Amino acid sequence: MQFGSDNQTGASQKVLDKIASANDGHTHGYGDDQWTKAACDKIREVFETDATIFFVASGTAANSLALASLVKPWETILCHHQAHILIDESTAPEFFSGGARQVPVTKEAGKIQSSHLENYFSQAGTDTPHNTIPKALSIAQANESGLVYSPDELTLLAKIANQHQVKLHMDGARFANAVAASGATPAEMSWKAGVDVLSLGATKCGCLAAEAVIFFDRELATDFEHRRKRSGHLLSKGRLFASQFLGWLEDDHWLELASHANQHAAALAQQLEQLSDVRLAWPAQANEVLAIMPTPMSKRLEEAGAEFYSWYQQSLPPNEQLSTNESLIRLVTSFKTNMDEVNNFIGIAKNG
Amino acid sequence: MQFGSDNQTGASQKVLDKIASANDGHTHGYGDDQWTKAACDKIREVFETDATIFFVASGTAANSLALASLVKPWETILCHHQAHILIDESTAPEFFSGGARQVPVTKEAGKIQSSHLENYFSQAGTDTPHNTIPKALSIAQANESGLVYSPDELTLLAKIANQHQVKLHMDGARFANAVAASGATPAEMSWKAGVDVLSLGATKCGCLAAEAVIFFDRELATDFEHRRKRSGHLLSKGRLFASQFLGWLEDDHWLELASHANQHAAALAQQLEQLSDVRLAWPAQANEVLAIMPTPMSKRLEEAGAEFYSWYQQSLPPNEQLSTNESLIRLVTSFKTNMDEVNNFIGIAKNG
Amino acid sequence: MQFGSDNQTGASQKVLDKIASANDGHTHGYGDDQWTKAACDKIREVFETDATIFFVASGTAANSLALASLVKPWETILCHHQAHILIDESTAPEFFSGGARQVPVTKEAGKIQSSHLENYFSQAGTDTPHNTIPKALSIAQANESGLVYSPDELTLLAKIANQHQVKLHMDGARFANAVAASGATPAEMSWKAGVDVLSLGATKCGCLAAEAVIFFDRELATDFEHRRKRSGHLLSKGRLFASQFLGWLEDDHWLELASHANQHAAALAQQLEQLSDVRLAWPAQANEVLAIMPTPMSKRLEEAGAEFYSWYQQSLPPNEQLSTNESLIRLVTSFKTNMDEVNNFIGIAKNG
Amino acid sequence: MQFGSDNQTGASQKVLDKIASANDGHTHGYGDDQWTKAACDKIREVFETDATIFFVASGTAANSLALASLVKPWETILCHHQAHILIDESTAPEFFSGGARQVPVTKEAGKIQSSHLENYFSQAGTDTPHNTIPKALSIAQANESGLVYSPDELTLLAKIANQHQVKLHMDGARFANAVAASGATPAEMSWKAGVDVLSLGATKCGCLAAEAVIFFDRELATDFEHRRKRSGHLLSKGRLFASQFLGWLEDDHWLELASHANQHAAALAQQLEQLSDVRLAWPAQANEVLAIMPTPMSKRLEEAGAEFYSWYQQSLPPNEQLSTNESLIRLVTSFKTNMDEVNNFIGIAKNG
Repeated sequence: MQFGSDNQTGASQKVLDKIASANDGHTHGYGDDQWTKAACDKIREVFETDATIFFVASGTAANSLALASLVKPWETILCHHQAHILIDESTAPEFFSGGARQVPVTKEAGKIQSSHLENYFSQAGTDTPHNTIPKALSIAQANESGLVYSPDELTLLAKIANQHQVKLHMDGARFANAVAASGATPAEMSWKAGVDVLSLGATKCGCLAAEAVIFFDRELATDFEHRRKRSGHLLSKGRLFASQFLGWLEDDHWLELASHANQHAAALAQQLEQLSDVRLAWPAQANEVLAIMPTPMSKRLEEAGAEFYSWYQQSLPPNEQLSTNESLIRLVTSFKTNMDEVNNFIGIAKNG
Repeated sequence: MQFGSDNQTGASQKVLDKIASANDGHTHGYGDDQWTKAACDKIREVFETDATIFFVASGTAANSLALASLVKPWETILCHHQAHILIDESTAPEFFSGGARQVPVTKEAGKIQSSHLENYFSQAGTDTPHNTIPKALSIAQANESGLVYSPDELTLLAKIANQHQVKLHMDGARFANAVAASGATPAEMSWKAGVDVLSLGATKCGCLAAEAVIFFDRELATDFEHRRKRSGHLLSKGRLFASQFLGWLEDDHWLELASHANQHAAALAQQLEQLSDVRLAWPAQANEVLAIMPTPMSKRLEEAGAEFYSWYQQSLPPNEQLSTNESLIRLVTSFKTNMDEVNNFIGIAKNG
Repeated sequence: MQFGSDNQTGASQKVLDKIASANDGHTHGYGDDQWTKAACDKIREVFETDATIFFVASGTAANSLALASLVKPWETILCHHQAHILIDESTAPEFFSGGARQVPVTKEAGKIQSSHLENYFSQAGTDTPHNTIPKALSIAQANESGLVYSPDELTLLAKIANQHQVKLHMDGARFANAVAASGATPAEMSWKAGVDVLSLGATKCGCLAAEAVIFFDRELATDFEHRRKRSGHLLSKGRLFASQFLGWLEDDHWLELASHANQHAAALAQQLEQLSDVRLAWPAQANEVLAIMPTPMSKRLEEAGAEFYSWYQQSLPPNEQLSTNESLIRLVTSFKTNMDEVNNFIGIAKNG
Repeated sequence: MQFGSDNQTGASQKVLDKIASANDGHTHGYGDDQWTKAACDKIREVFETDATIFFVASGTAANSLALASLVKPWETILCHHQAHILIDESTAPEFFSGGARQVPVTKEAGKIQSSHLENYFSQAGTDTPHNTIPKALSIAQANESGLVYSPDELTLLAKIANQHQVKLHMDGARFANAVAASGATPAEMSWKAGVDVLSLGATKCGCLAAEAVIFFDRELATDFEHRRKRSGHLLSKGRLFASQFLGWLEDDHWLELASHANQHAAALAQQLEQLSDVRLAWPAQANEVLAIMPTPMSKRLEEAGAEFYSWYQQSLPPNEQLSTNESLIRLVTSFKTNMDEVNNFIGIAKNG
């Protein structure tokens, strides 16, 4: 019953095999090698477009380096009030950008909607250099509440952003899950909908440490190599990242892994919803389930060895509140989750 | 004839096998796992002391995070004029430290000697806040010219540093080579000689991406977890680093790998020295050979497929100069270098 | 009818005379002079306590340097959602602190109340190093809506902050106005109520450029001289700041200047309130009047030469909203405002 | 006998009078006022060119903000090994630039010569992103050893810099002294010789706190207003700076003040040179005298109340060394220095 996080499993066997097979032989260092070239080509193929691509070892690095490419130190990044970049990555965006600021545009909603952006732009001060001006909008896909933006929703947000010279960054730590869930193509979910730069995370969904920063707007990538080097994220043995991405992307393996996780989250959500004293905070659209349950139930599950996190109350929908004896928990499934885990979990939840 | 860099080979098989074996099963994320615990314990055993240990993916990150733990943004780091941290890591130390400065204390010497430190301290201004004050000394072991500091040399430098409230950092990107070359124990080469914090590099010598920052002075480690997180160097799947270190350190595998590299550098240096028109810039004490040769010879070698770098003229010894038709080159051996490569190289060098 | 800002007048004659009288003679540079010593002594006398004091040229510098002394780059500063440090000082706090973050704890209230702090602490994540942790609370006195915190209110906020190891900073850009308005002593308004460090602004209230950072908790001042120097705020001719503060503080001149401004704001507010189509957004407790009026009225006033700013809608009280044809404006009085200006303004407002 | 620094006197009476006369009346804040406009116009007239101009309160701020406009955080600034920006401004350039690096191109010379630049460019690594690349050259005029670059010397340095896409910054803390000493026009000494941005210091030579950053290459000024605001250097009452510059520049008052200082330095140097046991380290070309004298003589002078600083040994010329009982001292004259001070000093020096 391992629902703590999708980063708590190892790599898929295919990815591991590719690391081993790429280990042989001599290459140049720092990404100037045949494996890195092949991995970049594969990504361009999957996304059906040319793009400038860099690999790094963590999602925090991918997001922060991408954002630092979009804003100057005195500019701001619009985001969701529960964005991972805002809540769970220390002050990494500030560090990488030299002190740029994140400004949440939502207060309670599950996803950023066009009205949030319009409201922001109608009210924010524009008296520079006193007021700060946004130059980036960051959207997580799938997001921190397990919700997936549709290509149409993204397109609308990108359009408003664009009207204000604001670039669109996508935190794709769970991009695979979003693509698998939506049926849209990777291209439709990204550059075709107006995304300028994507942090494509493979770590949570079957790799060990592999994140790609994909610049669809290639002019934004100009300084990236310097930022990556001076932040210690240019690895000398480029084959480590490249082999993981090759193993992950070949034969749609990444979507298989993501679909597996999504399906098990859906099963878990469906069964939880049938319990009379449990309700979902948000629909489970990808591989995360946000559930409100009696605190004794959550304690019973923990005591039985189930792993999951209590989750931030600020992530609740408008008009939703925990009563005194309720808990909000987050359950995350992975490519290794199996139905036994799901069924056990439900069984213990029921038998209070 | 791959003498470009020791980072141009993959991982040793033992290390690779350990990655695979650590891949199974569920753990907590972010280093809170059994593999990370075991790897830290193994390091403490190898160094015969308690220490606070963190893993990161690159030497640049290890060095910069360590240095940022020693100096405030308005303080300075003393180093060799050819230090990797000064010459080859962009402005990473400045980035991580918030703008602290590196101050070279040598101009021509191969290693930092006590006289360099004494000279610095006797002449440098001490009128704060105008003048900057050093709080760290960084020494590479083995260093950028392939030289190894003896425990006695380190002890003397540490003593002078200590008298001025300056902490001692060791850039151990080739620490394995230094230990293997010197016969000293890891402890004698580090904390027993006064090293406060060591960047222990495994990547160049048989791993894929594995660097440890080892705080022998544990109080200096207080803020490290924050610095690592906000710089994107806290990886979610801790087993990646831990398994590499376990495979590398168990059964003295790391020293076997380093000895192999050292022996082949020694063979290469010895044979080069016997060529009448080649001379060594510095003795080859670890796995690097700095050689001065006729430029036609170096061109001939390149055309024959030998890989190596032209090296910085500023690294030459005092009173040594290149004549018009000479080149300074750096040859680096690895755990995979074999005698055929060495012999081929010498053969082509000879037949001009 | 100059109600644009209290920084749009020059210095009072007494302050100007003191600058001139301090101009003669030779001193040491960088604040090591008799004028600076006298000014610091005068501040200690006015505040009835020992304190460590530094002078800088701008409120932004004073606030940001003070805050940088309280938080590490990965920590946060709690503040009001309309705080000047958050809204009107670009990303200065981020710059000076090396990337620390400001977190607003209010959404609509005029002042920070204890419930805002309690609510924040009950909900915020505490999982370091992922979540960020507050180490400072910044309160403006008088604040951006012209409201004054009582000593009791401050004491309560300081107590809650203290329970969470959070230091209390006061942005005293209009501290003189707050003291003059409240009848409390400078000590009661600051350290006796739990303020750890005060940015005492003299510029807006009768000086040309003179701000003091006063550390009542003197241990927090350790690194200040370095931060001030490297940010270019250590002026060589210390007498410039010192003479202004001496002229300003002697014989309660500062409180006379502030009272004058406050009284004219009160008169303006009182007369505005009597207009049937005008209402105050907040009571005018110091020298700022936040008024809601028909947009034609505000246009008529502007056309007649009145100076004032449209103000941020986000600063409105809960349940207060502008209707389509209304404007929120901010009127600020200074030590030079006279009743003719007030009466003219009201006269034009009336005659629509 | 006040030879400690030219920043140890107050303002000239003309400057002080202008501050007083500009104090009256209402203006807009933050430099949007008639005084600031007039001062900028006056500077353009004096320099016979259009330029983008900003005022700040300290030389450290002027230099660092200018340099931050020229280099990205991963680039470098070439400078003299005794440059004020390198030796005496803490780590301000690093702070403002986000971590860019200063690289000295001299080791012993009094001024940067073309050979120093050529030597640097022929030897420095260019393998980005590992090596750092220079984008700015900073020259002090007059420099820290009291030497003045001729327009021809500047032109040659600018030409070499330009060939490497390196911009030229001039630290003009003593620009007035250099102009007065050389007979060249301000234009010839700056933009006509290839200077892209000048920090024009008025503080040391008759003002209280007034520095202008003058962008002759106006495109480089794009971000300056943001950098100035977020570093706390945008003062609200712009008339303070503007009035000082107006008083200083009108009727060539600045050059009168500088000439006075220069002449007294020349007199001092001339008389010192005639003493058999004193020698000048460098010719006294502006208002600084670097003298080597017997230590007992320097002690005798100090005891008699003379103020001056011991100076950095690293600033000595090649082949010049202090013997055991000698001291290097720096004497600086100001617009207030008089011949009595000079004569007294020489008298005491003689009578050992």
